[in-house]
Amino acid sequence: MSERRQPVLGILGGGQLARMLALAGAPLGVKTLVVDSAGDACAGQVAPLVVADWTDYEALARFASMVDVVTFDFENVPAETAHWLAERVAVSPVPGALAVAQDRLAEKTLFRECGLDTPAFVAVDTREDLGRAIAEVGAPAILKTRRLGYDGKGQFRLKTVGDADAAWAALGAQGAAHGLILEAFVPFERELSVIAVRSREGDFRTWPLTRNWHTDGVLSLSLAPAPDIDELQRRATELARTLAERLDYVGVFALELFVKDGKLLGNEMAPRVHNSGHWTIEGAHTSQFENHVRAVLGMPLGDIGARGLSCMFNWIGELPDPAPVLTTTDAHWHDYGKQARSGRKVGHATVCAPDARVLAERLNHIAHDLGRDGQAQPALQVLG
Amino acid sequence: MSERRQPVLGILGGGQLARMLALAGAPLGVKTLVVDSAGDACAGQVAPLVVADWTDYEALARFASMVDVVTFDFENVPAETAHWLAERVAVSPVPGALAVAQDRLAEKTLFRECGLDTPAFVAVDTREDLGRAIAEVGAPAILKTRRLGYDGKGQFRLKTVGDADAAWAALGAQGAAHGLILEAFVPFERELSVIAVRSREGDFRTWPLTRNWHTDGVLSLSLAPAPDIDELQRRATELARTLAERLDYVGVFALELFVKDGKLLGNEMAPRVHNSGHWTIEGAHTSQFENHVRAVLGMPLGDIGARGLSCMFNWIGELPDPAPVLTTTDAHWHDYGKQARSGRKVGHATVCAPDARVLAERLNHIAHDLGRDGQAQPALQVLG
Ligand SMILES: Nc1ncnc2c1ncn2[C@@H]1O[C@H](COP(=O)(O)OP(=O)(O)OP(=O)(O)O)[C@@H](O)[C@H]1O
Ligand SMILES: Nc1ncnc2c1ncn2[C@@H]1O[C@H](COP(=O)(O)OP(=O)(O)OP(=O)(O)O)[C@@H](O)[C@H]1O
Repeated sequence: MSERRQPVLGILGGGQLARMLALAGAPLGVKTLVVDSAGDACAGQVAPLVVADWTDYEALARFASMVDVVTFDFENVPAETAHWLAERVAVSPVPGALAVAQDRLAEKTLFRECGLDTPAFVAVDTREDLGRAIAEVGAPAILKTRRLGYDGKGQFRLKTVGDADAAWAALGAQGAAHGLILEAFVPFERELSVIAVRSREGDFRTWPLTRNWHTDGVLSLSLAPAPDIDELQRRATELARTLAERLDYVGVFALELFVKDGKLLGNEMAPRVHNSGHWTIEGAHTSQFENHVRAVLGMPLGDIGARGLSCMFNWIGELPDPAPVLTTTDAHWHDYGKQARSGRKVGHATVCAPDARVLAERLNHIAHDLGRDGQAQPALQVLG
Repeated sequence: MSERRQPVLGILGGGQLARMLALAGAPLGVKTLVVDSAGDACAGQVAPLVVADWTDYEALARFASMVDVVTFDFENVPAETAHWLAERVAVSPVPGALAVAQDRLAEKTLFRECGLDTPAFVAVDTREDLGRAIAEVGAPAILKTRRLGYDGKGQFRLKTVGDADAAWAALGAQGAAHGLILEAFVPFERELSVIAVRSREGDFRTWPLTRNWHTDGVLSLSLAPAPDIDELQRRATELARTLAERLDYVGVFALELFVKDGKLLGNEMAPRVHNSGHWTIEGAHTSQFENHVRAVLGMPLGDIGARGLSCMFNWIGELPDPAPVLTTTDAHWHDYGKQARSGRKVGHATVCAPDARVLAERLNHIAHDLGRDGQAQPALQVLG
């Protein structure tokens, strides 16, 4: 029996996504090495951490020499860093896919090329552009930075065309630097996401669609499989496959979708495991984290089927009392090991059940004990 | 929002049990610190590792100062070490419980006191004792070291009374040092184990009984919940509870049982998470690892109910090809990140299914692809 070498997964960014990737990789015999500029990055609690920033090429060279493949916890790694690494080690997803997902304009343009409709949008670089864009798109609308937005940051909502000056005051400076995009505000019926995975060999799979609810631009609650989706699963899968093949994508990605008049509109693509896929840890036969590790390391993909119904609560800012979750059957606590901070994603809980009735019971019980009826309410309403 | 301090679990021993405890603790926000004398101990891949042996009190003092509670991956930690630590930090289970489980004589004596029958046994310290013991117990019988045995090591099987000299030649030296025990060989109908957990507040729970098959004294296959157990679950739970209360036990332990003429006989107690409970990671609502972490850190226990049926294959010596497991629905791979070595536990796989028919199908498929029909056969026979 010869000495074995375990595969090593390198992750750029050491937040909760890296943490959950490392935890999913361990049973596969995969070692993880994480890079983050913060010495207390929470993934560092479960995997060795290299403290370095994205331009510390000396540290990055050492990191690259120690891993078999590099992937992302954080999609806003500078394109130069991703390209520089890709010259030295396998990088999955490829930097080109990352570049598209980093730019709302490129992303939405690609969506349309792939047959996925989007809200009306216009690129905005100057105050004059904004005026023209509003004339074209109308109001209400949302002005967003093209780059570096997340959790609803870098956005301004225009209720009327009269809000143009306020919007420019808020985001104009960023517009000059990285560009902006004005989007029509879509009074959508539902928000859905599809989490997809593609292997090196082109094996492509999508988990059942997830229904999502946001509060102040941040994901608050997910329910999966999304009820009453009829044809949308097939359509979302087809679109995600087209996108993945177009980008020669390897690994997991998420496509955030609006449903308007029963039709899908593309909001954005996350070139990584995604918050709306956290339910797959307990709610699917193979989680998004495990399948991402498998995909980028060239292992066969696992079954993406759901196990009953799951509902995920996001914990934003600080953790509530864990006891109601810990003491409920098939409810699962996820503390990311972070310090509390306003607006920060610090944990989540997933509640699973064999059917809608039992799930509603468990959600009701937990939400009530936590004084979080409001957070659970949209799922409870759908579960009937 | 004030600075939070995450609980820190200290583990003596850095093998696969420590590794799986650390992985189960992370989603609870628990940090793990492991002590092992080997720098490449596999738990060190997922948690910080202090390299020290059991008498390095300087290192142990530093370790004790960094953790909230100390627990065990390895029950043969010297009693002095456990006691020394217990004067400085909470130790769970208490050193007294560890001491009983370390000594087959004390253990079996306690079993009887608690109303659990055992195979006939006699303490053996000298060659003369052995003669007398054989006269009392008869043959076939098993001579075992009282201490430090595991995975069938430190045992000699006597087919006839004429094997006494051979048995003494094999184990006599160890007998002089730590004592031996001669046990009647029990032609049991089945081997079962019960995995139990007790919280600080005395909340006590047992997972469904597990049926186990050993090969050469090492666990090869487990099936849970054990089929056709009738009254045995209630009886095993009662006995485990009596034992736990007697020892003021906090945490998870396993009781290995023989079934003879439909009745339970106690074989041994493991004062820790146990190989025959690995199926609980995917097969129960809360795993033995998670509930052990919760118990020793004073959190409420989770539901121990099973989710369908599970079968665990142990991988001994080296790992087989992972592909058949990775590509089967609800089958889960566990690579401990160890080097291959004859007789070593290097991993396991758990196959789950909603019912016996589907489980048999999945087992058949995996066993066939791996050329391991023999390993799966006893479970397949029971599943019918
Ligand atoms: N054009 C739109 N019409 C209506 N609502 C929108 C629109 N764009 C964004 N939203 C709402 O704001 C949420 C966050 O927007 P978006 O996904 O663009 O932001 P983000 O900062 O990239 O968020 P995340 O980090 O969650 O991906 C959306 O999920 C949706 O609820
Ligand atoms: N008295 C007995 N009669 C029949 N079989 C026995 C007896 N004692 C042990 N065995 C067989 O040998 C196996 C291992 O024995 P035992 O549990 O004593 O060893 P161990 O080294 O402590 O093992 P482990 O590490 O698995 O707990 C048992 O599970 C059983 O199959």
